[in-house]
Amino acid sequence: MKTIYEIGAKAKEVEPVLRTLETVPKNEALLSVAAALTEHSREILEANSLDIEAARANNMNQGLVDRLMLDHGRIESMAEGLIQLAGLDDPVGEVLSMKKRPNGLMIGQKRVPLGVVGIIYESRPNVTADAFGLCFKAGNAVILKGGSDAINSNRAIVAVIRKALEEKGIPGEAIQLIESADRAVTSAFMKMNEYVDVLIPRGGAGLISAVVNNSTIPVIETGTGNCHIYVDEGADLKMAEDIIFNAKTQRIGVCNACESLVVHSSVIDELMPVLKKRLDEKQVELRGDSRACRAAEGIHEAQEEDWGKEYLDYILSVRTVDSLDEAIAHINRYNTGHSEAIITNNYEHSQRFLNEIDAAAVYVNASTRFTDGFEFGFGAEIGISTQKLHARGPMGLQALTTTKYIIYGNGQIRK
Amino acid sequence: MKTIYEIGAKAKEVEPVLRTLETVPKNEALLSVAAALTEHSREILEANSLDIEAARANNMNQGLVDRLMLDHGRIESMAEGLIQLAGLDDPVGEVLSMKKRPNGLMIGQKRVPLGVVGIIYESRPNVTADAFGLCFKAGNAVILKGGSDAINSNRAIVAVIRKALEEKGIPGEAIQLIESADRAVTSAFMKMNEYVDVLIPRGGAGLISAVVNNSTIPVIETGTGNCHIYVDEGADLKMAEDIIFNAKTQRIGVCNACESLVVHSSVIDELMPVLKKRLDEKQVELRGDSRACRAAEGIHEAQEEDWGKEYLDYILSVRTVDSLDEAIAHINRYNTGHSEAIITNNYEHSQRFLNEIDAAAVYVNASTRFTDGFEFGFGAEIGISTQKLHARGPMGLQALTTTKYIIYGNGQIRK
Repeated sequence: MKTIYEIGAKAKEVEPVLRTLETVPKNEALLSVAAALTEHSREILEANSLDIEAARANNMNQGLVDRLMLDHGRIESMAEGLIQLAGLDDPVGEVLSMKKRPNGLMIGQKRVPLGVVGIIYESRPNVTADAFGLCFKAGNAVILKGGSDAINSNRAIVAVIRKALEEKGIPGEAIQLIESADRAVTSAFMKMNEYVDVLIPRGGAGLISAVVNNSTIPVIETGTGNCHIYVDEGADLKMAEDIIFNAKTQRIGVCNACESLVVHSSVIDELMPVLKKRLDEKQVELRGDSRACRAAEGIHEAQEEDWGKEYLDYILSVRTVDSLDEAIAHINRYNTGHSEAIITNNYEHSQRFLNEIDAAAVYVNASTRFTDGFEFGFGAEIGISTQKLHARGPMGLQALTTTKYIIYGNGQIRK
Repeated sequence: MKTIYEIGAKAKEVEPVLRTLETVPKNEALLSVAAALTEHSREILEANSLDIEAARANNMNQGLVDRLMLDHGRIESMAEGLIQLAGLDDPVGEVLSMKKRPNGLMIGQKRVPLGVVGIIYESRPNVTADAFGLCFKAGNAVILKGGSDAINSNRAIVAVIRKALEEKGIPGEAIQLIESADRAVTSAFMKMNEYVDVLIPRGGAGLISAVVNNSTIPVIETGTGNCHIYVDEGADLKMAEDIIFNAKTQRIGVCNACESLVVHSSVIDELMPVLKKRLDEKQVELRGDSRACRAAEGIHEAQEEDWGKEYLDYILSVRTVDSLDEAIAHINRYNTGHSEAIITNNYEHSQRFLNEIDAAAVYVNASTRFTDGFEFGFGAEIGISTQKLHARGPMGLQALTTTKYIIYGNGQIRK
């Protein structure tokens, strides 16, 4: 087994090859890896069954076992994801601008790979193929540290990917797996600034904060979503009802689901009874402030801690406000910088909400559920950034690149 | 004296005001601060003289005393810098793209301030006004932690700036100074993720690595420059001589100065005698490998450690190579990701160098000394990033902003 430093050094060694790989061989390799995953699905499933057995023996809870488990369909989805990536535009090589300076220098900014990307994730073997595909298409080497409960599955998937790459003449070390379950190894990984250009944690809040707190390597933080919808005075209440129902219930456990309503006092009495009835279809529990509770039957009283909560469940908090200012202040206080929406028909209010709400995605008259790389038209997604550096909001292939300045001269010297 | 947490909370409190400040009042405030600095230069100089006295009593070395010292001319330069900032385009509010999705959603990316910027720097009081100006123009609140030897100067400058802001109705807490010299306070500052959006260390390698290693807040790293110039086979040797002379000697202590030459073996014998003579004008010491040493008199033998050194001095290393491949491998091994140049007349070589060298700025036939926000036409500079996330190369006002997605809908829900 390689040491973590050998893994890092190897990634840096193959990085120049990947950085300069042309689009056609990259796409062919992705298709070839996709075919190999399908072809070797039996070996992958056998390895996965070892992980599942061990997980059950350790009494892993059913939700986690579900995420760990693979079947033919899930392997097909992994392969399908790689095929889709092959069809996307290559982000590498685009020159974003090229300007001529007064001294004749032509200065341009060119999109290039980040280099070596580290990904730390939980026991979800599908992320292994997915993360590889995104990093590879963007010209990066990837070092993966998956949850140790998925080690057999990950080993099998990585072996298949590497063999397929090598058959195409591409170094297998384009993808490397940290196999050690030792926490000291993971901790050393997070401090290998000489080998790793960026770390991306993919998983729950605990995993993310552990990486943010321990890494000396720059981290792209993907975060939780306490997303609000504000229903303004004079809003179309039927539209509000439809959007709220969609944003709350279309999928419950996702970061762009609506967790909290903010409602103008002039519409609370009309909105709440209708909304309560609609949300009853999905047994959504409403937790409101006193005015919301008075507006309809069966609304529970919200506690202070409700305003800051990402429920990821059939629960929705409701806050009543008397003005747009109050709504903006409330949302900016409690939101997590993810996705926020206003339902309004007031032009000035829509503009103020877009300007003054501090979040990755701010909506007028649409469901927060659209914050997603596919819905935004990126064709792929490595996560949704809730931090402000480098990438904010849904991250597609471009988030896995950086730029460099290229300068064409003809002998210029500085005076 | 406020605690560090009170300072952080205050910055977050005024941030929404700064974020939505329009361009005209921002520019007027910058001009007003510039005028106030000139008007109160006597108080600032008095405070500065206390710092200078203390520094001399502590036997601070002359170079550091020079950086600490202010005079009327330096205060004028600080004011001038703010006036120039007032004249630059406001980066905030620009919508970078706005696309219509098949479902009718209009999705755009808008440039917005980062929020709260922390700057940790050495005992250079001019940075205080400069860093404030850049952060303020980009709509951010700034928290400054300057070197403790400059505390009296910094207090005086900050007091003048705050008073000028408040007279314009802008919260003085747009700029706050950490006055404590306690290392525990600085350490706590680097972990205030709830209050600070980004930390920028400005100073030497030691300061930067201390911030990178201790901060849990995202850091924009500005780094050292071990910059190379490669003289290719068939290059115009007169152009090479002029560019090398400029890049090495035009200013010696800067990160974009040339520290190492790489020369193709076919031109080493012709280039070195001429170059030696030219660099003798400035008493530049040459340290070469064996072939470079044989090519001219008076070249010292380079040691292995020379290849990785940022001299910031009248010294230049010289390495001989037999091919472009060897040159690229050498540079990618020893460079610090700053600025690298090729002198060539070969089209394919110029393209390969631009593509394969991994650095923030890659030049063909020009001096590395151009890597600089002013020379690149940004009008201002907060530093030169040698990391790959968020900003790479010279950072102007845009590097102090982030983006958010703004989405215009008319009732869209996710299917």
